Amino acid sequence: MSEKIYIFGHKNPDTDSICSSLVMEKFDKNLGLDVEARRLGNVNEETQYVLDYLGIAAPELLEKVEEGQKVVLVDHNEFNQSAEGIEEAEIQMVIDHHRIADFKTKSPLYYRAEPVGCTSTILYKKFKEDGMNIERQEAVLMLSAIISDTLLLKSPTTTEEDKKALLELAEIAKIDVNTYGIEMLKAGTNLDKFSEEELINLDAKKSEKNGKKFVIAQVNTVNIPDVLKRKEKLEQVIEQEIQKNNISLFVFAITDILNSNTQIIVLGQETVAAEKGFGKKLEDNMMFLEGVVSRKKQLLPVIDENL
Amino acid sequence: MSEKIYIFGHKNPDTDSICSSLVMEKFDKNLGLDVEARRLGNVNEETQYVLDYLGIAAPELLEKVEEGQKVVLVDHNEFNQSAEGIEEAEIQMVIDHHRIADFKTKSPLYYRAEPVGCTSTILYKKFKEDGMNIERQEAVLMLSAIISDTLLLKSPTTTEEDKKALLELAEIAKIDVNTYGIEMLKAGTNLDKFSEEELINLDAKKSEKNGKKFVIAQVNTVNIPDVLKRKEKLEQVIEQEIQKNNISLFVFAITDILNSNTQIIVLGQETVAAEKGFGKKLEDNMMFLEGVVSRKKQLLPVIDENL
Repeated sequence: MSEKIYIFGHKNPDTDSICSSLVMEKFDKNLGLDVEARRLGNVNEETQYVLDYLGIAAPELLEKVEEGQKVVLVDHNEFNQSAEGIEEAEIQMVIDHHRIADFKTKSPLYYRAEPVGCTSTILYKKFKEDGMNIERQEAVLMLSAIISDTLLLKSPTTTEEDKKALLELAEIAKIDVNTYGIEMLKAGTNLDKFSEEELINLDAKKSEKNGKKFVIAQVNTVNIPDVLKRKEKLEQVIEQEIQKNNISLFVFAITDILNSNTQIIVLGQETVAAEKGFGKKLEDNMMFLEGVVSRKKQLLPVIDENL
Repeated sequence: MSEKIYIFGHKNPDTDSICSSLVMEKFDKNLGLDVEARRLGNVNEETQYVLDYLGIAAPELLEKVEEGQKVVLVDHNEFNQSAEGIEEAEIQMVIDHHRIADFKTKSPLYYRAEPVGCTSTILYKKFKEDGMNIERQEAVLMLSAIISDTLLLKSPTTTEEDKKALLELAEIAKIDVNTYGIEMLKAGTNLDKFSEEELINLDAKKSEKNGKKFVIAQVNTVNIPDVLKRKEKLEQVIEQEIQKNNISLFVFAITDILNSNTQIIVLGQETVAAEKGFGKKLEDNMMFLEGVVSRKKQLLPVIDENL
């Protein structure tokens, strides 16, 4: 067990999980705490774009946490999205913007969740509240996380607070948010190098409702038809995943980040939950959802409600 | 279903639950929100002392919440301590200082927990952060809650933040905290008027560990032997409660608030958890715990760990 307090985001880390871990590390180090940012999986290409832009390394991989290990969770709270062994860790703090579920502690803790678009927006507020100076590196990390989570403020999860934070962070970083943001988002849409197995796990959130396991996996693209060329193989690996892990419903969401639409491929015994929820029939296991880009706000609640 | 947002603390409300509900109501009304403080049970004598001191009425009783009802939880989060129907309510906000367990939402929310001694300490910070003026009534409500939860700053749950808040609130309220506090705490120790059934339910927190239900009930007194005169009858009603609700362990804690000690009466199939946890044998179903006053910090974690 490390004496250090580990800070990490969710499995299959996205840009918010990596950037917010690094920013939280900086925040806590400024306070004199012995902390270290870690990651629970591979860095995706979008996040790599950010790290390369800054010329910094990704946090080290964390395989699992030992009993009693002190940890800070950012950008998640559900144990099934967290590190192996999290049940026996000592969770000291959570900074998050998701619903709360599958989470439990033995002792009181510091927990801060706000219904905003991005964890980094809350971290930005923490810096301001504490009168702590935001340096350029942290400004770029936070604005990148906000651009990623809100798809350049176009996602319905976007709040006024995200907009305000992004604006001020862009000033500190002296960055043209639109130019930088589109390049960053595009970097994350290069799906060719991934196998189908990898695609369905790139950004997959597992949940459970009434004892039924379901997965909503999401990939971002600038060209949905391009991804659908691989539909047959994608369905095969999803079916394997369903069999292997006894999953009742698997939703694979292909989101067009430029036009803000999503095509979903839905498989499993409970596909009717998607049909009921979105009020449409699946055709060839698929459904086109206009204006849908947010898993958290537009997919997860609908599935959770109807499963 | 009410259009108003209901604000309430836990079942068997203590002074923090009632006072923090009223203070949060004031805070939200200042922001122009349509809110109403409610309570989930009878007001205890300590709390009544505070309300009488201010000449104000208690919040109205809330029997249960309807599906979709907007609510704000203060001083608790566990559903088994909350209003009937809470699973289907829309929880917009939680302000709390307890561990998190048995809590789940469908959507992102505003959640603020801090490991401090009292919910009102967090509310005090909220007023300050928002630059909102604290009027005398809210100052008295908050300082009463802090005195109650920290037993006049003597409980081990007390933090520097509670001390700071109490000091500043006393200045606003122009109250001598010690004189007022001892009178208030004493008012809450008049147990004669309660039946044994009432005593074991006055401030009872129910939890579950590995499928085993356990209850830790607590009463405050200035005279432990006085309460123990009723031991036989207390054990009878505890046994009935155990049978009725299939409870594995019932801990009845009699806390001497002036000398900061606790006598516990322990019944149920799993009494060994208490013996293991506190490293003592029960004698005549009892154990004396020197320096123990806090259920949250000194009783609950020990039982939870050993059950």
